[in-house]
Amino acid sequence: MIIQKSSNPRISSFDPTSFSFGNTFIDHMIICEYNNGKWGDLQLVPYGPIGFTPAMMGVNYGQACFEGMKAYKDKDGKVFLFRPEKNAERINKSAKRLAIPEIPKEIFMEGLKTLVDIDRDWIPHGEGMSLYIRPLLFATEEALKARVSEKYLFAIVATPAKSYYAAPVSVKISDHYSRSANGGVGFAKAAGNYAASFYPTQLAIEEGYDQIIWTDDSTHEYFEESGTMNVFVRINDTIYTPKTSEKILDGVTRDSFLQLAKRRNLEVVVGDVKVSDVIAAQRNETLKEVWGVGTAVVTSIFEALGYNDEHLLLPKLSEEESFAAMLKKDLTDIQTNQAEDPFGWRVLVEEQVYDL
Amino acid sequence: MIIQKSSNPRISSFDPTSFSFGNTFIDHMIICEYNNGKWGDLQLVPYGPIGFTPAMMGVNYGQACFEGMKAYKDKDGKVFLFRPEKNAERINKSAKRLAIPEIPKEIFMEGLKTLVDIDRDWIPHGEGMSLYIRPLLFATEEALKARVSEKYLFAIVATPAKSYYAAPVSVKISDHYSRSANGGVGFAKAAGNYAASFYPTQLAIEEGYDQIIWTDDSTHEYFEESGTMNVFVRINDTIYTPKTSEKILDGVTRDSFLQLAKRRNLEVVVGDVKVSDVIAAQRNETLKEVWGVGTAVVTSIFEALGYNDEHLLLPKLSEEESFAAMLKKDLTDIQTNQAEDPFGWRVLVEEQVYDL
Ligand SMILES: Cc1ncc(COP(=O)(O)O)c(C=O)c1O
Ligand SMILES: Cc1ncc(COP(=O)(O)O)c(C=O)c1O
Repeated sequence: MIIQKSSNPRISSFDPTSFSFGNTFIDHMIICEYNNGKWGDLQLVPYGPIGFTPAMMGVNYGQACFEGMKAYKDKDGKVFLFRPEKNAERINKSAKRLAIPEIPKEIFMEGLKTLVDIDRDWIPHGEGMSLYIRPLLFATEEALKARVSEKYLFAIVATPAKSYYAAPVSVKISDHYSRSANGGVGFAKAAGNYAASFYPTQLAIEEGYDQIIWTDDSTHEYFEESGTMNVFVRINDTIYTPKTSEKILDGVTRDSFLQLAKRRNLEVVVGDVKVSDVIAAQRNETLKEVWGVGTAVVTSIFEALGYNDEHLLLPKLSEEESFAAMLKKDLTDIQTNQAEDPFGWRVLVEEQVYDL
Repeated sequence: MIIQKSSNPRISSFDPTSFSFGNTFIDHMIICEYNNGKWGDLQLVPYGPIGFTPAMMGVNYGQACFEGMKAYKDKDGKVFLFRPEKNAERINKSAKRLAIPEIPKEIFMEGLKTLVDIDRDWIPHGEGMSLYIRPLLFATEEALKARVSEKYLFAIVATPAKSYYAAPVSVKISDHYSRSANGGVGFAKAAGNYAASFYPTQLAIEEGYDQIIWTDDSTHEYFEESGTMNVFVRINDTIYTPKTSEKILDGVTRDSFLQLAKRRNLEVVVGDVKVSDVIAAQRNETLKEVWGVGTAVVTSIFEALGYNDEHLLLPKLSEEESFAAMLKKDLTDIQTNQAEDPFGWRVLVEEQVYDL
């Protein structure tokens, strides 16, 4: 691994109590180039621009996928990643579907740990605070031919993330737009999936909603995901979530929620979640909670569902009554080293001395 | 418009009889930045890199769309574009669906004409020769938030294109993979659509096919497109092509073929093209031709269809018998100023003197 530290670090001007999430970048980034059929040297370099012409295939043909994960700092300053091997596996599932060469897990993990270690001072500590980490893979060959690229970049960039209270949101159950096709790329964290979701989301916002519950494109009768989260429904005391498929992203938070729910002996059904069943449950008042889960906000509680022209309210549960709130706490306590981790999900980022 | 000519033009080393399509770039490119809610100055600059970090939203969230069009040089050296306003309109349809700000038609047209004019020496002349032009729009803000970007780049890059004989190809009728969802982005020239098609195409190639006939994702019973082309089927002497929809790109070549077919009083049906009807016609020998159309190769003739595990051969028609060949000649004669243009499709690129 080649390490080139910034000669101009910005960390001293970083204020962990006041920063802008998403565009405050840590001092370094990881890059690794793919060319001539193989991955080159893993490099840690100062965060900054790389030169690309507008013929770069990544922006022309969308051969690009990414991951989203976090590092947490505990009260003693120890730094942990959460189930990072899941992200390493998933970026390669995405890569395969997009005909991008897979990034060896060792390169992914070494890049990740080195970056987080060297820039550990950028990780804010405190309730809900973390470092949001973005590994990505994209085509870099410059050529105007709609075919698989011969050059790629693997990169990891990161931004400090704030605790942010996620206010309950209203979500529209999609009756026209969709995010995945059968035989498509919905299960992949493909760049193009996100762009495709923006316009429908804008329309939902104009209708007074905050985000969309995506339904299957053929019939709009089944829940798929919500915004960029997996979705859970609670009817009486049973939790339902769609099973993952080629149309649904296999979320790390979703999987963790399922395991935490089982540990609490909650009844969980993983399978088809029918829109009509959810609506019927709302009408007969057995629908208790609907929520989304993902790395970014952990849990987003829904307060209302938009269904056709109806605005259906959900009960307001207390923190004690809410399964969503309970499982969120179970999860964040493990992530931030405030609870035992019987699952072995936390991965300590050790402090290394780098010979530069 | 700001014009900054290359101080180091490569045109003198360009050999129009021997060059590589797709990665031989003309001396200049067009760029125009969107920021603070508006498009800035249109600029012609030397072709070359622009700096982006890996946090660039275009490669993270796939907010990117493009066009493909050509300029042709006639025997007197006059240069023509073909229906460029169609591409200006279509890039904005794509942009809208991807929540990218539309590029004003005047900026698009002025950039296009100036680039083609200034680099007109790069346009090879001769049968099938042209300049392939790539206008594109992509998100350039550097931020790790899955939301609409606030900065964009409009660019035009171009590469000389060779006459290339398109050998008849075998195509697989897709029975699993698909390129568009209902309520998705199939009608847009969205970057992500292309990446999504590469892996299924690779699998088809491994099965001995050259490309895929995409079918609807819900039932795989209807033709949509073929590879990156629109698709035509001829049964007896009637031509069929799917009607455009939110799942099908509205191709300029397709539209031109339809108008040229009508001018020849051919019977044309625009509507559902059922896989089962095409297969039945192949079996009873009324299926005469199946072909794809698009700017890149104009026409690609199919010699065989893969349907489930069958490899169904198509008749080999002579140039005189083939509607595909006939309409292709009608079209290219107009494009290259070898025939009258009653449709007003050709647009002359005038030679300007630039005050630099
Ligand atoms: C489409 C989509 N679904 C679900 C998720 C949740 O996945 P995870 O829990 O791994 O963050 C994400 C990513 O955050 C996503 O982009
Ligand atoms: C998916 C797709 N379909 C069809 C076409 C044909 O469109 P046009 O004739 O405008 O080139 C293209 C572009 O070439 C395409 O990318």
